[in-house]
Amino acid sequence: MQNLCSSLRTEGLRIGFVPTMGALHEGHLSLIDLLRERVDILILSIFVNPTQFGHNEDLDKYPRDLEQDKKLCMNKKVDYIFTPLTEEMYQPNCSINISENLLSIGLCGSSRPDHFSGVALVCAKLFNICQPSVVAFGQKDAQQVAVIKRMVRDLNFQIDVLVGPIIREYDGLAMSSRNRYLSAEHRETALFLNRSLQVGKQLFTDGVTDARKIINQIKSDLSRVDGLELDYVEIVNRENLIAEIDVKKNQSICVIAVWVNKVRLIDNYCF
Amino acid sequence: MQNLCSSLRTEGLRIGFVPTMGALHEGHLSLIDLLRERVDILILSIFVNPTQFGHNEDLDKYPRDLEQDKKLCMNKKVDYIFTPLTEEMYQPNCSINISENLLSIGLCGSSRPDHFSGVALVCAKLFNICQPSVVAFGQKDAQQVAVIKRMVRDLNFQIDVLVGPIIREYDGLAMSSRNRYLSAEHRETALFLNRSLQVGKQLFTDGVTDARKIINQIKSDLSRVDGLELDYVEIVNRENLIAEIDVKKNQSICVIAVWVNKVRLIDNYCF
Repeated sequence: MQNLCSSLRTEGLRIGFVPTMGALHEGHLSLIDLLRERVDILILSIFVNPTQFGHNEDLDKYPRDLEQDKKLCMNKKVDYIFTPLTEEMYQPNCSINISENLLSIGLCGSSRPDHFSGVALVCAKLFNICQPSVVAFGQKDAQQVAVIKRMVRDLNFQIDVLVGPIIREYDGLAMSSRNRYLSAEHRETALFLNRSLQVGKQLFTDGVTDARKIINQIKSDLSRVDGLELDYVEIVNRENLIAEIDVKKNQSICVIAVWVNKVRLIDNYCF
Repeated sequence: MQNLCSSLRTEGLRIGFVPTMGALHEGHLSLIDLLRERVDILILSIFVNPTQFGHNEDLDKYPRDLEQDKKLCMNKKVDYIFTPLTEEMYQPNCSINISENLLSIGLCGSSRPDHFSGVALVCAKLFNICQPSVVAFGQKDAQQVAVIKRMVRDLNFQIDVLVGPIIREYDGLAMSSRNRYLSAEHRETALFLNRSLQVGKQLFTDGVTDARKIINQIKSDLSRVDGLELDYVEIVNRENLIAEIDVKKNQSICVIAVWVNKVRLIDNYCF
């Protein structure tokens, strides 16, 4: 794969790259569309990366559907799908780690302490293998976006990072491979994630700029939803993830993480 | 620099790269010679990297002689010298770290706990900026060589790592920018570093393969040298740095670190 990508670059072609863990949905596919006009070659990787899962997380049951993923990629005219094996990506005595120590501490980092290190490591490896000029990530994973942008800057990767908007189901649920875990009933519960973000949006539209007031309203709303366990609701600066006191348009995001029947779901809204 | 290197690569040119902290000596220059036949473009960087110095180490007084370095590079027909400023390399809120957690723990890592993280970080950055096909490091820094090779493998840098032999002064002292710190008297003391390695070599030539016996003889010899404080003497596998029980030709190295008048000096010998 690396030799192929080297050859493509030596030919002067621009590579666009979407790293994924497969179980592709419209969110992933929208990232391909985002890249298409900017690059000559489209590469999508499918790799369920073990280093970004905690010991008690869902690595083993994470949804895998390679045949369906291939069809979706072919329909989208992806040029290459890169599907390395775990033993190809990680040697038995691999001993290099990448850590990010400002942006990855709070929010999802609190309950998933090694998650963003794993994400950074696999992305650094995939970037060096696939040698993209442009990569695309989804805004749904807002903290991941901030960490990846920081890594690209701090390790001097010559890569533009594009961010695609959150793509939602017809009923407002943010698309996620983990939605496949949800029963019809739990899915109804999960809808409160987006509904509570809409409540925050409405408060801001109505003139409330005090982040604490908006957060408290959302927390209060979500606490009344049966079967939904709140991890966090925060309003932070979208770049540095520092908590905002006053909500600012196009700069502040409200980020939420919950568990619904042990399925961890995240969503966010940019004011 | 990055744009320049991108252009060179797009033209199909192979870049050879020698990262240095300046105060160049024959050891550095030998690395340029090592690369010359294998590449189209030679780049040498000079950057006294703060992240690889501990708080009590010699960052501030580390020798700097850019004008002399430039002359030496021109004589050696280096194509580009890259001399970034600290504030260009490290943004105020840089937050990405690279760590290596097997090879960098013992030996120099014991007394310099953050050193190899700093080396790995700056090399990853420089590799991404200068985009070499081949890099060269000196065998004098044997542990650094092992860590860099591991990082290149584990982060999938498409880079060949060449290792140049230790270059010595007429009297056997391994060349090092830090030798400039030594007075004539301390320099005499420092010669015992190489002499003790020669003792180890002779023992092995005479049929001693028990690593512990060789180490003990060297420790005993060095303990009698006034003004020399031993940090460590070990015999390890040159690739994985694991202690050897039996010395093996072309595989085991004897590594030594000492302080002479607070100047830290290292040297090693491959059996």
